[in-house]
Amino acid sequence: MIPPQSATVQCNSKRIITPVDCRYRCWETLMAILVAYSAWVYPFELAFMSKSSPHDAATKRLLYISEYIIDVFFGIEIILTFFVAYVDPNTRLLVWDSRKIALRYLKTWFLMDFASTIPFGLIVYVCTDRHKLGLFYQSVFGMLRFWRLRKVMQLFRRLEKDIRFNYVLIRCIKLVLVTLFFSHLAGCVYYILADTYPHSGKTWIGSVNPNFREGHVLDRYIASVYWSITTMTSVGYGDVHSMNSREMIFNSVYMMFNLGLNAYLIGNISNLILEGTRTTMEFRNSIQAASEFVSRNQLPESLKEQILTYMCFRFTAENLNQQGIMNDLPNPIRKSICEHLFLPAVRNAYLFKYVSRETLLLLVAKMRAEYIPPGEDVIVKNEAPENIYIIMSGEVEVIDCEEGKEQTTRTLLSGDILGEVAAMYGKPHSYTFRTKTMSQLLWLKTTSLIEAMQTKPVDHQLILQNFREMNDPQFTFWDNQASNDSSAAPAM
Amino acid sequence: MIPPQSATVQCNSKRIITPVDCRYRCWETLMAILVAYSAWVYPFELAFMSKSSPHDAATKRLLYISEYIIDVFFGIEIILTFFVAYVDPNTRLLVWDSRKIALRYLKTWFLMDFASTIPFGLIVYVCTDRHKLGLFYQSVFGMLRFWRLRKVMQLFRRLEKDIRFNYVLIRCIKLVLVTLFFSHLAGCVYYILADTYPHSGKTWIGSVNPNFREGHVLDRYIASVYWSITTMTSVGYGDVHSMNSREMIFNSVYMMFNLGLNAYLIGNISNLILEGTRTTMEFRNSIQAASEFVSRNQLPESLKEQILTYMCFRFTAENLNQQGIMNDLPNPIRKSICEHLFLPAVRNAYLFKYVSRETLLLLVAKMRAEYIPPGEDVIVKNEAPENIYIIMSGEVEVIDCEEGKEQTTRTLLSGDILGEVAAMYGKPHSYTFRTKTMSQLLWLKTTSLIEAMQTKPVDHQLILQNFREMNDPQFTFWDNQASNDSSAAPAM
Amino acid sequence: MIPPQSATVQCNSKRIITPVDCRYRCWETLMAILVAYSAWVYPFELAFMSKSSPHDAATKRLLYISEYIIDVFFGIEIILTFFVAYVDPNTRLLVWDSRKIALRYLKTWFLMDFASTIPFGLIVYVCTDRHKLGLFYQSVFGMLRFWRLRKVMQLFRRLEKDIRFNYVLIRCIKLVLVTLFFSHLAGCVYYILADTYPHSGKTWIGSVNPNFREGHVLDRYIASVYWSITTMTSVGYGDVHSMNSREMIFNSVYMMFNLGLNAYLIGNISNLILEGTRTTMEFRNSIQAASEFVSRNQLPESLKEQILTYMCFRFTAENLNQQGIMNDLPNPIRKSICEHLFLPAVRNAYLFKYVSRETLLLLVAKMRAEYIPPGEDVIVKNEAPENIYIIMSGEVEVIDCEEGKEQTTRTLLSGDILGEVAAMYGKPHSYTFRTKTMSQLLWLKTTSLIEAMQTKPVDHQLILQNFREMNDPQFTFWDNQASNDSSAAPAM
Amino acid sequence: MIPPQSATVQCNSKRIITPVDCRYRCWETLMAILVAYSAWVYPFELAFMSKSSPHDAATKRLLYISEYIIDVFFGIEIILTFFVAYVDPNTRLLVWDSRKIALRYLKTWFLMDFASTIPFGLIVYVCTDRHKLGLFYQSVFGMLRFWRLRKVMQLFRRLEKDIRFNYVLIRCIKLVLVTLFFSHLAGCVYYILADTYPHSGKTWIGSVNPNFREGHVLDRYIASVYWSITTMTSVGYGDVHSMNSREMIFNSVYMMFNLGLNAYLIGNISNLILEGTRTTMEFRNSIQAASEFVSRNQLPESLKEQILTYMCFRFTAENLNQQGIMNDLPNPIRKSICEHLFLPAVRNAYLFKYVSRETLLLLVAKMRAEYIPPGEDVIVKNEAPENIYIIMSGEVEVIDCEEGKEQTTRTLLSGDILGEVAAMYGKPHSYTFRTKTMSQLLWLKTTSLIEAMQTKPVDHQLILQNFREMNDPQFTFWDNQASNDSSAAPAM
Repeated sequence: MIPPQSATVQCNSKRIITPVDCRYRCWETLMAILVAYSAWVYPFELAFMSKSSPHDAATKRLLYISEYIIDVFFGIEIILTFFVAYVDPNTRLLVWDSRKIALRYLKTWFLMDFASTIPFGLIVYVCTDRHKLGLFYQSVFGMLRFWRLRKVMQLFRRLEKDIRFNYVLIRCIKLVLVTLFFSHLAGCVYYILADTYPHSGKTWIGSVNPNFREGHVLDRYIASVYWSITTMTSVGYGDVHSMNSREMIFNSVYMMFNLGLNAYLIGNISNLILEGTRTTMEFRNSIQAASEFVSRNQLPESLKEQILTYMCFRFTAENLNQQGIMNDLPNPIRKSICEHLFLPAVRNAYLFKYVSRETLLLLVAKMRAEYIPPGEDVIVKNEAPENIYIIMSGEVEVIDCEEGKEQTTRTLLSGDILGEVAAMYGKPHSYTFRTKTMSQLLWLKTTSLIEAMQTKPVDHQLILQNFREMNDPQFTFWDNQASNDSSAAPAM
Repeated sequence: MIPPQSATVQCNSKRIITPVDCRYRCWETLMAILVAYSAWVYPFELAFMSKSSPHDAATKRLLYISEYIIDVFFGIEIILTFFVAYVDPNTRLLVWDSRKIALRYLKTWFLMDFASTIPFGLIVYVCTDRHKLGLFYQSVFGMLRFWRLRKVMQLFRRLEKDIRFNYVLIRCIKLVLVTLFFSHLAGCVYYILADTYPHSGKTWIGSVNPNFREGHVLDRYIASVYWSITTMTSVGYGDVHSMNSREMIFNSVYMMFNLGLNAYLIGNISNLILEGTRTTMEFRNSIQAASEFVSRNQLPESLKEQILTYMCFRFTAENLNQQGIMNDLPNPIRKSICEHLFLPAVRNAYLFKYVSRETLLLLVAKMRAEYIPPGEDVIVKNEAPENIYIIMSGEVEVIDCEEGKEQTTRTLLSGDILGEVAAMYGKPHSYTFRTKTMSQLLWLKTTSLIEAMQTKPVDHQLILQNFREMNDPQFTFWDNQASNDSSAAPAM
Repeated sequence: MIPPQSATVQCNSKRIITPVDCRYRCWETLMAILVAYSAWVYPFELAFMSKSSPHDAATKRLLYISEYIIDVFFGIEIILTFFVAYVDPNTRLLVWDSRKIALRYLKTWFLMDFASTIPFGLIVYVCTDRHKLGLFYQSVFGMLRFWRLRKVMQLFRRLEKDIRFNYVLIRCIKLVLVTLFFSHLAGCVYYILADTYPHSGKTWIGSVNPNFREGHVLDRYIASVYWSITTMTSVGYGDVHSMNSREMIFNSVYMMFNLGLNAYLIGNISNLILEGTRTTMEFRNSIQAASEFVSRNQLPESLKEQILTYMCFRFTAENLNQQGIMNDLPNPIRKSICEHLFLPAVRNAYLFKYVSRETLLLLVAKMRAEYIPPGEDVIVKNEAPENIYIIMSGEVEVIDCEEGKEQTTRTLLSGDILGEVAAMYGKPHSYTFRTKTMSQLLWLKTTSLIEAMQTKPVDHQLILQNFREMNDPQFTFWDNQASNDSSAAPAM
Repeated sequence: MIPPQSATVQCNSKRIITPVDCRYRCWETLMAILVAYSAWVYPFELAFMSKSSPHDAATKRLLYISEYIIDVFFGIEIILTFFVAYVDPNTRLLVWDSRKIALRYLKTWFLMDFASTIPFGLIVYVCTDRHKLGLFYQSVFGMLRFWRLRKVMQLFRRLEKDIRFNYVLIRCIKLVLVTLFFSHLAGCVYYILADTYPHSGKTWIGSVNPNFREGHVLDRYIASVYWSITTMTSVGYGDVHSMNSREMIFNSVYMMFNLGLNAYLIGNISNLILEGTRTTMEFRNSIQAASEFVSRNQLPESLKEQILTYMCFRFTAENLNQQGIMNDLPNPIRKSICEHLFLPAVRNAYLFKYVSRETLLLLVAKMRAEYIPPGEDVIVKNEAPENIYIIMSGEVEVIDCEEGKEQTTRTLLSGDILGEVAAMYGKPHSYTFRTKTMSQLLWLKTTSLIEAMQTKPVDHQLILQNFREMNDPQFTFWDNQASNDSSAAPAM
């Protein structure tokens, strides 16, 4: 839940590492990979390498060495854990106190971590001569290695919450790895069962290929995993099948387990699909409702076309309007975003030319951007001038409705301002403004504009000047009133 | 997300095509079909036609020619893409600038499209003599053709959002095609594996039918696909099964893949069922709650009957009331709908006979339609006259409640007006109005009626005249008051 | 969607039947059963009876006769449909006009219904001598019978919405029937494929049992269905398997179909489980949140106990409080329910003894019942007397809080009234009332009580009399004030 | 639904046991385990012990004896049920009346319970000589034992609602037990089918191992269960398969049943996964939306970092803020929690030193705790002093914003108070307070503080004294005003 590079974390102690430290994250990832490798190799080694023929000796030695190297790494990890700060689940703050860290680790997972790191294989090899018993001890204690898989699960839990990775991908990779791991594990167990059975012909592999032990290790491994996967996926060709009670018991357990695993896979993927199709579903449902409405009321084809087109655009606009996120953010961040997004557009609007950056920042912090689908009335004639709008993108038509007839006078484009004339004179709008294409508008309350103008007289004059230059005929009227009684201007 | 025939898109440039152009849509669909055909035929060709017997020669030639024709089409598609406008994901506006279009295509998918269009088969055929290496190159580069399947996925993504097609159907077709394609592909790979294996008797098909190569190409194809489907569906009869390590490896991969595919299928269909049963579920839940309420409180059978009947009708009425959609639509569209739906009914209501179309349009724009389940009180006696209602369909009973006893006086039918008497006199209603069947009522605020009447004096007089004619006894009273002091009429 | 016995439907025409008529419902159910039987028997007949041995002749004749009887029934059904009113999907009203009914039927399903009713078997038998062609024609036209399955689906759609049947059960039965039907159908097709194959030894059944045609018809049927189910459930033992291309093709199609069917089954059952566990899930989630809250804040064990116990009771109480349903119901029904539920309890409360039924009905219509978990304060000391409460079930403690110490004075039981003293005197409550067990309280606004009392002076006096008798010491005080200045009583 | 140790239940009768009694719960659990054992052993006994060889005699006798012991236990259970109070589903109250308890049990499940407890085996053994008929009777009546499984289901239903157990775990255990039980049951039926078939070689086990009856009982059991699981999981190797019609019929039924069982398993696990991933999903979705917002608007990297970090903390804080639960709890519990949680912190705050416990309790009851993500403004400069805050954990920066520049003056830590200066003087805040780390703040309305202070003059003086000591320079100012006109202090 801790963000990747938290700006607020400070290392109070030289010797304590923060868990969000970039290098520690890398180390953790490396450990997870080593653990995965170890969990992969260990059953293979146990099954196929214990009675290995001479030409497998090199491979065997390589695997053993890699195991010991990993054990060393894991030992370092144990020591390191004593120096890593942790997040207290109650207060959600990092705990830097090394005594508390040590205590917590010793109380929770230290013992298991330690036990799983002792190189039992080596000890057994050194201490005992009897091969049989040694193998048994080794395999029992070796199981402790699977305890380390916790590290891999922790990595995936972290990745699932990491915003830089695709969630669906991470979950799919997890599912694939889990499935592969279990089929590999079962394959190895299958081989051990056949290899250690006294009557070689009464085993799953021996009944098909009596001299199976002489085959190449890879062929034997492929045959094992092949049967394992055949069983796991519930295909069950039957070319290979259990031959004795021991195999039947393991196979029954494995099949039951697969029932659960399959359900787990299906449940996970259902879940992802449900999540993935939600947006489309919602879109379809709203369109469907509109479509039913049209057909029930037998509206003419042209109206149907208009309604559906509008609904499509509306859906798009809703997706684009993410005001909710803006509202969730705290003040300082919100201001920065507004400055970044709106300042260039506002500076280029004719009304705010040459206005000081300070005043513009004040204005910009009070603006909101909105996407509006085509064909919607932004301003209706005779409305009171509550807002002014700046077009960020798209086109807006100015419509003159006289005696029930509508005439498009002009088309405003990106950078133009809507409704500023009515706002300045403080009288109702004399035109209807309707979007022609999907448009992004920046809107500002008229009162906010007036407030902002009052803070700096220079900017006030500049804005008035800009307004006069643009709207010629009103020039003298405004000028007179402004010079006579500036404070009595209706809306200013 | 772009609606099929957007009315707002204008072609600014003669040479640039809009992506919502009807002809371009057809071309895209054609391309998707060709691509699908090509992806289908190519693996078949590779598997069954490479070592073809003489009597397959004609088929082989046909397939090759069709391939080259598709390559030509795809070449045209590449050139065409340079002249198709695209939707900018940020502003949601079409980009017509041909330079930007070209740049975008070159930056994204041009290279892969181009590579997949080069007829490697032809090149290999011309350049090399060695059949083996040629086959290898051809198959590797031929894989690029699967890149084109992107076109088919785009088509489906578009169809899923297209309101003219059934969503469930489109998704089911997609699932079926995906399943069929993979089983076909795996069938072809199976055959290639068997065909190229040195020891013919140790292959899945050779062990069953040693002379399989002499069989008809269709028989071999059916056997391959049969095994492929047996595996995919996890039936796994075992009459055909892997015989060598190579087959085992491919089969294991394929089975693992099928695990995912099956989960994907189930997840998709679960999702569709969940969506499909939602309405029924909600209905059942509300009925269930009512039913539990009845049984817990041990209400008598007659009351139970009434409650459940009412709940059923209520649910239907809620489904029919789609006021939400009306509210979502912009002003111009809403007006058109109201005019289309309500004008005929309003014109036929006695109160509005001979009234001018203009006034009626004003009224109609302020009306709302609502379905009301049977047995509900529309107007309760002694309520203030806030609304008047026009019956669109169904029947409404006029009930006189005197001293606790209810008597049905009259039954109003489609076209009748409710509550206009009280509204005109501005006094409380003197009857209770209760729906008898599921009824659609059109309601209008009394104040809206008065406002609309004041705009045109002629219509005002007409409405008053209509009211007098219908409600005889009130004629003189109203006339007197109106002539003496028209402006002082209580509600007018 | 039409409720089973709608009270509002009236038969306007003697000859037209309403679709909610009880007898017509029975007829429809009978038809559905006949159709199901026919769809079941027809494939069996075609597969196992066409080349029947002499000892099956009786069975064969029986089946044929039953078929013709069903055809007659279906003919009657076609005629009947012309006389059944239908629900107009736009207005949701029944259409009684016989001309419209006929037109609608002719336009929609008449042709298919008619075609599926013609006894092709009989025609073929009479007209043609050539058995082979006859069989072919018969089977092709016989497929039309499956068209009739629409009737069964309609029945199930109706049952799913019928409140008298368990929804989960109906859906499960539907799923089971669909599964059984398809496995039966596939079994029959399997047998036809084997039976009509020229080379008997190369068929799925012939390869296992060469003289299969001599076996009993039931053994052959069981073997067919056994293989069909083995395939459908994707078990695929492989003891029986496809032997020739024709069987492979059908089997592949069937396996693909099963993939969809399985997904459909799983999707449906997932859906039902999701619905079924929702309540428990919500309960668990609320408890879980409370539990986490406790453990995060390390609250002591005794507080934890209290909180969790309270949450449990709260959940139960919420389930019991179904005020939402009451609010949804229309006025007349709501009044009846209140009368039925609350009148007995209110009549027995000491305050309302001997009060007239009319006044009680007025009071009861304004009461609301609520379940309150134990340990909650119903009335807190010094609150204004806004409501009075009557205990329907459970126990309420009267608590005297003096100087921070709480003392339980009395325990009120079912039938007692809470807060009436404060309400009568119009002064703040002098005790805290806390629920001891889960209690159902009936609450009434004090103002509503006063309003109801003012309508009938006799009842007013009775209530005052009852109050005086119960609360002795106040008797004189109230009497004085009431006699002097009855209208000036603070709260009355 | 009854909480484990309900504090409100009182045993009114010595002889009636409450169902939430701890000892009765134990007895119920014991009964459920015995029932499960019995249902497990009975089919095994019937299948493998009826024709047992001499060396199984001991096992057989043991099983029979255990059966009779369980029957005795179950007899006690029947008697006990007459003395256990039950919860009335309508009033949710415990019914203690022994007559009602008896009546209810006799009306519902007594008969079946009684029938399933009669030791038919013994009766049959004693009464009849004919072994065959005896076996048949025994098995038919023995089926009644499965009726007792109801007890196990009740146990699981109770455990699912028990807050002390993990819900997911309980449901998974239930699923596993159900699956194991059915595979065991089917295994036993399989063996009975083979054992009782006249032609031993034509059975599933006899065709593989002709002398199967001579094998060890465990080997035979393993083979049966192995086949049962192979079928249930739809693996279907085919090494064992149905050989005669009787086996085919049972196997078909079992496969169909498994189709449902598998769907049930998958549905359940899907459901659990859906529930389990919801929180992560919501987190990902909110982060995803923020991320899209950033990339659409092409915000710079630094802003992106800030936004995402903030969103992460916000999500954590929302999880920690469980005010909703506090609001749901009744008054007495809420007060105890506030006292437990906030009193130590408040007592240590400098302002409330030496203040009496009574006043502190008053204050604490009006406080609310909230977690606030880092970087949020708790108090903005120039805001009115509505609240004062006490820091429970985390760090808060005091920021001085002069002329657009922000300067961090101080950092407040756990135990410090925010905004008390402005609250005391009743003037706007002169600093901005911004959280530096995730902080838990305790907030109190200024008006609540003033109210609480007015109840006890001593504490009023103490608080003022504390305030003066801490904020030296204001000491005289406050003192003067307070001494002159204590009641006219602006905010006090």
